Amino acid sequence: MQHYDAILMIASSEVDSNLYYATRFLAPDPFIFLQVGHPPQTEKILVMSDLELDRAKAQAKVNTVLSLSQYEGIAKQKGREPNWVNVLDLLLQERKVKWILVPSNFPIEYADGLRGKGYLLEFSREPFFEERTLKSGEEVEFIRQVQQATEEATDMAIQAIRESDVRNGLLYCNGEVLTSEELKQIINVKLMEKGCVAQHTIVASGDQACDPHNEGSGPIRAGDSIIMDIFPRSSTTRYFADMTRTVVKGKASDKLKRIYETVHKAQAAAIQMIHDGAPGREIHERVCQVFKQAGYETGMVGGRMQGFFHGTGHGVGLDIHEPPRISRSGDVLKRGHVVTVEPGLYYPGVGAVRIEDMVWVTDRGGTNLTKYPKQLEV
Amino acid sequence: MQHYDAILMIASSEVDSNLYYATRFLAPDPFIFLQVGHPPQTEKILVMSDLELDRAKAQAKVNTVLSLSQYEGIAKQKGREPNWVNVLDLLLQERKVKWILVPSNFPIEYADGLRGKGYLLEFSREPFFEERTLKSGEEVEFIRQVQQATEEATDMAIQAIRESDVRNGLLYCNGEVLTSEELKQIINVKLMEKGCVAQHTIVASGDQACDPHNEGSGPIRAGDSIIMDIFPRSSTTRYFADMTRTVVKGKASDKLKRIYETVHKAQAAAIQMIHDGAPGREIHERVCQVFKQAGYETGMVGGRMQGFFHGTGHGVGLDIHEPPRISRSGDVLKRGHVVTVEPGLYYPGVGAVRIEDMVWVTDRGGTNLTKYPKQLEV
Repeated sequence: MQHYDAILMIASSEVDSNLYYATRFLAPDPFIFLQVGHPPQTEKILVMSDLELDRAKAQAKVNTVLSLSQYEGIAKQKGREPNWVNVLDLLLQERKVKWILVPSNFPIEYADGLRGKGYLLEFSREPFFEERTLKSGEEVEFIRQVQQATEEATDMAIQAIRESDVRNGLLYCNGEVLTSEELKQIINVKLMEKGCVAQHTIVASGDQACDPHNEGSGPIRAGDSIIMDIFPRSSTTRYFADMTRTVVKGKASDKLKRIYETVHKAQAAAIQMIHDGAPGREIHERVCQVFKQAGYETGMVGGRMQGFFHGTGHGVGLDIHEPPRISRSGDVLKRGHVVTVEPGLYYPGVGAVRIEDMVWVTDRGGTNLTKYPKQLEV
Repeated sequence: MQHYDAILMIASSEVDSNLYYATRFLAPDPFIFLQVGHPPQTEKILVMSDLELDRAKAQAKVNTVLSLSQYEGIAKQKGREPNWVNVLDLLLQERKVKWILVPSNFPIEYADGLRGKGYLLEFSREPFFEERTLKSGEEVEFIRQVQQATEEATDMAIQAIRESDVRNGLLYCNGEVLTSEELKQIINVKLMEKGCVAQHTIVASGDQACDPHNEGSGPIRAGDSIIMDIFPRSSTTRYFADMTRTVVKGKASDKLKRIYETVHKAQAAAIQMIHDGAPGREIHERVCQVFKQAGYETGMVGGRMQGFFHGTGHGVGLDIHEPPRISRSGDVLKRGHVVTVEPGLYYPGVGAVRIEDMVWVTDRGGTNLTKYPKQLEV
């Protein structure tokens, strides 16, 4: 796509990872990013409020940092309202930009404003920056660091389960009933000590865990499967990691053991298929096939989904869910992708199992970035 | 505004607080929210992936939860691509919707897709839901709870500064040089223990603090002003709190003391002016006036902004920065708003001071939700 004069983004880079990727500058409030021309000859421009001006000049990986208030002043002098569309109009005229490429989440407010002034706007879907999906050695190292912290935190929670006593079917730690909340706190506090921010950590057991995104609450029972899905972000590098383990305190039922073995087998089959050029859809279908062959059906039962009803995996990087998807969607894996492989089976009344590793896609295969052991009974 | 048939949002409610406010349902990936009709007779509809279907039915405060895959199936049967625009087209026809109101950040992708099918889309600026700015007693209580945790965490950091030893101008704690990073970790870990997630916590001293959003790094020096700006979110209620304190280890210079007193005086003058109907612009101008009268000029010096170059305050709630603004923008305060009041002065070579409290706007005045003392030298 070369039929545009410039790329434009207006967002907060704390929320929008494409904008952070393009600028390596973090700010809580929206700002303007304009990239004029095509690589290798581009000018990257930021338009910043007085509050962020100096920090942007010092930190942002761009060519030019302009003052929003200065452009607002020029707009006023010309008798126009000093709003962002008028500021952009001035800047786009200066840089002789007419055709603009924006991300698919570009706000309707600015799209309508700029089109109203005659600019031609087109959007491009994710991945907006293809190269963002292809991780450099440094980026993989950042992900590894978060993953290491994730494994330490997971291990603390599993140790607490292992060392707990069982009374009347409930788990006790230091005389207190062990709950999902307690385990999540152990994990989240440990991760914060390591400079990683964990939000929406899942520690869900029994029927709760049969909703894959239920974060879990209340006491844990011996014999129930406990899904722990932990996906923190480094507060320094901004990269995520993502891992899920499923454990049972004490003895698991034979039914649960067989589900665990089947999920484990499906995950191994999927990881085996990963390499540069592998179609995500085929990997996902292989997982579905392993489940089907073992007799595990997917569908609505009594008004509730059961079986395997989510994708097999997703890219991980500056966002926790980013391209590519290993799913029906048909993305193709490329060397440099970092993806999760996380099949699961969910049967209310029996239990839920999900096992998730992160894999770095290489020419001939994949490097598993997850080192933590897989063991059902603890 | 009654000239629309429905409100439409497509976003992730973990990121978009309007969507969370409308549904009280948290999900990491984008989903569709449609509100047909006008209050009090509305139908709130969610369209959810199989993964989130059951959780949405159980948790979301809506009337109807529809299955995305079911609508995708209908689209396919009709020979159309099973994308979200075609899914929405089916749903909007069923509900006889033609005119659609969307938030100003509505994605261009879906705006173009729906307009291409003949739907009339208009956007409305923030606050999209006026009532979101007017906090209920319960919401104020949620903010108070986070604020209490914030004060405990701040106090731990200030205690560490107070109890540190000074050697060669540097602060030492347990034999180690005390750094911004160390103080931020004390604060963030304490907040996580209290179920609050702190990100981008600022502990910046000396010239670093003269950039208001510099998060701070490296050793702290005795005699330098240290700005601590802490704004965590409760992971259970999703509400934020926001507080800033400025301290000096040991003796502050006379210049710094005078800056502190002036900022404190400006803040008190601003808080005094808060009541239902107070124009934010007048409050902001009063702060500027206090600074000017005390001889503190604002402007670019040596290519760097100094003085007072940010707003006086902002709303706090489900977002850390939300309407109204106490600034040049001209928002008017209303009963039920919760706003920060945070004047600051920044002079490289001398130091920076910011003092921030949260105030709940009432009929005749404001209730300060911040209890933590203000003291420069510790």
